[in-house]
Amino acid sequence: MTGVAILGFGTVGSGVYDVINTNCGVLKSKAGEEIKVKKVLDLRDFPGNPVEEILTKDYEEILNDPEIGVVVEVMGGVEPSFTFSKRALSMGKSVVTSNKELVAKHGAELMTLAKNHSVSYLFEASVGGGIPIIRPLCVSLTADKILEISGILNGTTNYILTKMTEEGKGFKEVLKEAQQLGYAEANPTADIDGHDACRKIAILSSLAFGETVDCENIYTEGIGRITYTDIEYANKLNCLIKLIGSSKKTVDGISAKVSPFLVSKDHPLAAVNGVYNAIFVKGNMSGNTMYYGSGAGKLPTASAVVADIVDAVRHKGLSVNIGWNCDSQARVAEIKDSEVKAMLRIGSDNLEEAKKSINEVCGNVQIVDLDIEDDEFAIITNKETEGSMNLKSEKIKTMGGIKEIRNLIRMEA
Amino acid sequence: MTGVAILGFGTVGSGVYDVINTNCGVLKSKAGEEIKVKKVLDLRDFPGNPVEEILTKDYEEILNDPEIGVVVEVMGGVEPSFTFSKRALSMGKSVVTSNKELVAKHGAELMTLAKNHSVSYLFEASVGGGIPIIRPLCVSLTADKILEISGILNGTTNYILTKMTEEGKGFKEVLKEAQQLGYAEANPTADIDGHDACRKIAILSSLAFGETVDCENIYTEGIGRITYTDIEYANKLNCLIKLIGSSKKTVDGISAKVSPFLVSKDHPLAAVNGVYNAIFVKGNMSGNTMYYGSGAGKLPTASAVVADIVDAVRHKGLSVNIGWNCDSQARVAEIKDSEVKAMLRIGSDNLEEAKKSINEVCGNVQIVDLDIEDDEFAIITNKETEGSMNLKSEKIKTMGGIKEIRNLIRMEA
Repeated sequence: MTGVAILGFGTVGSGVYDVINTNCGVLKSKAGEEIKVKKVLDLRDFPGNPVEEILTKDYEEILNDPEIGVVVEVMGGVEPSFTFSKRALSMGKSVVTSNKELVAKHGAELMTLAKNHSVSYLFEASVGGGIPIIRPLCVSLTADKILEISGILNGTTNYILTKMTEEGKGFKEVLKEAQQLGYAEANPTADIDGHDACRKIAILSSLAFGETVDCENIYTEGIGRITYTDIEYANKLNCLIKLIGSSKKTVDGISAKVSPFLVSKDHPLAAVNGVYNAIFVKGNMSGNTMYYGSGAGKLPTASAVVADIVDAVRHKGLSVNIGWNCDSQARVAEIKDSEVKAMLRIGSDNLEEAKKSINEVCGNVQIVDLDIEDDEFAIITNKETEGSMNLKSEKIKTMGGIKEIRNLIRMEA
Repeated sequence: MTGVAILGFGTVGSGVYDVINTNCGVLKSKAGEEIKVKKVLDLRDFPGNPVEEILTKDYEEILNDPEIGVVVEVMGGVEPSFTFSKRALSMGKSVVTSNKELVAKHGAELMTLAKNHSVSYLFEASVGGGIPIIRPLCVSLTADKILEISGILNGTTNYILTKMTEEGKGFKEVLKEAQQLGYAEANPTADIDGHDACRKIAILSSLAFGETVDCENIYTEGIGRITYTDIEYANKLNCLIKLIGSSKKTVDGISAKVSPFLVSKDHPLAAVNGVYNAIFVKGNMSGNTMYYGSGAGKLPTASAVVADIVDAVRHKGLSVNIGWNCDSQARVAEIKDSEVKAMLRIGSDNLEEAKKSINEVCGNVQIVDLDIEDDEFAIITNKETEGSMNLKSEKIKTMGGIKEIRNLIRMEA
């Protein structure tokens, strides 16, 4: 029997408790021994809940219980999660987490600590909830050099963009509905502004390229400026708008960003709707592969946590090798050097003059007219660096016939 | 250093040779030691090819080389692959294969043999080519009870159906083109008739449900009867036609089949086009997940083989645990007990009378009229067992106004 302690009895923590109890037979046969929740740490009380009997407020009780081999850290945040994780690993207990903030910030250090104590630090649930991505990246695609990794990494924003597209509604209206339905938090900033996706693409980049990518260095733009008019332009181009986190290795370092993208309706990512997430990987041998599933949700996330517990138990006495080179910090390319194409929506008080101005600054570019809007049009830029595109945008604004640039949405270069 | 021997220098074998040579640096860092192709077994000569120097026609040379720790069996067919694999495993060498025929037939026995000799028998490449599916199933979804597994498992048939749909062409015309382009073999029976997909769903079912599923017991129907008219009906129902292998656990045993299916355009499998494959898994905790990639092709398949080599080397002295319970044979439910809905195309010499007849036999069912066909219509049956549906079909044929049943295509029940 291996005992498990769960730190934090919130959504994921109670999900882990449920998964272990519901599927105990399966787990025993897969892990080779019984897995049992021995302690749950939470400062709250849960009167009447069966968890009450194993609830503690004292972390020392967990650390000092020799039967507890795996500590599940699902408290979120950096502290006290970081300190608790370090102490568990130092005492020879494996740690399994869904805490993307902590993994993005201190994952490398915690993995080294785990290795030095012949235990595992595992975090499948920190990226993509219930989507298995870390094992495929680290065990199945080991024969590949990963060239590029990108994906729809946040369920809240994908739900909002899907609803806006399907129902022709505006951002604020759909956000409000999403909050009422529990698909968006009361304070939705981390999701809406792309910070959640940013932490996930930082973790995925670190795994794919074997060096720590600091999320502070990743250019991040949310979906707050996307309007239904943008979606109509996208539709005219046979595209959808999705919030994409992407990362690839270039000569300038790792080029990573999070921003809304025009995705062709033929691309497999275009079929990823609602709260679903998907991660697209390009390897130099395996070609394109994609991993799709529930990006969040109590049971899918808990299922990923429990699968990590099983793996830690199967490898007792060993450190499961994830292949993220802990010592080295990746160079992240500056956004201005990144190459893209984009759709620019041009507000105009004289369409003919404005199109002449565009031709002067950008040369011959594709023009998109939306029949229902008579004071604007869009252009598709040629592929160029973000720096050069910014200079051109600034220039465009000053030209005849042009009132403003109403939005800029990237598309695959 | 671990030495590798490749049995068979065909498409996959030469791909494995290329992947190991191209990505040797990556492989060394992931496996923890150098991986080197020491011998290649093939009865042919390859004059001028660098492989010439390590070519042998004598398997004993490979068996007796203590530096060779992993034997890659990519010859295909059951013999001599089976005998060669058994001998390698018995001598303490791990075996990695892409041979779905052998895995479907003798996988369980070979895994037991591997376990008894503390080596591994690995076969990621046997299902879905370059799509990582076996690791996700056996390591990432270990906390789940798998309820259902289904997918587009054959690239040739998916290419043909995609082309028929996109270009409005008939089956025979597209098959001929596919043969000219190398996407279909000169003798395409194994693909077209669904036997290849059948072997793969047999392997996936065995892994998902932990018992050996014999592919001989799986109802299998190919795409040879699909016409462009069927695709037009599908389109009217907002569906595509895909060849689907599916398997789920029911009270009658494992209910598995391979047949063309109507797939809603909103379903993630609908976005899987051309030679791409995808596998859809439903777990009791993780919910729906999907794995997408190149189902075949030299380098993607070789990449999967080499990832297995790396895993075998990482676990030297251990048997990698796949979780397929070798001793037990699964009960496969009879097709007549399987529940489905279907679209039946009804040829008629009197539409009004025919629709009355349908109402008499099937009750109130959905009728689909295709404007361009005036001597037929289609119905969507209610959910019922295949046995009961067959009885009704026989009855329908004898009824007034009805000439024939032109096709029956299943859809998700």
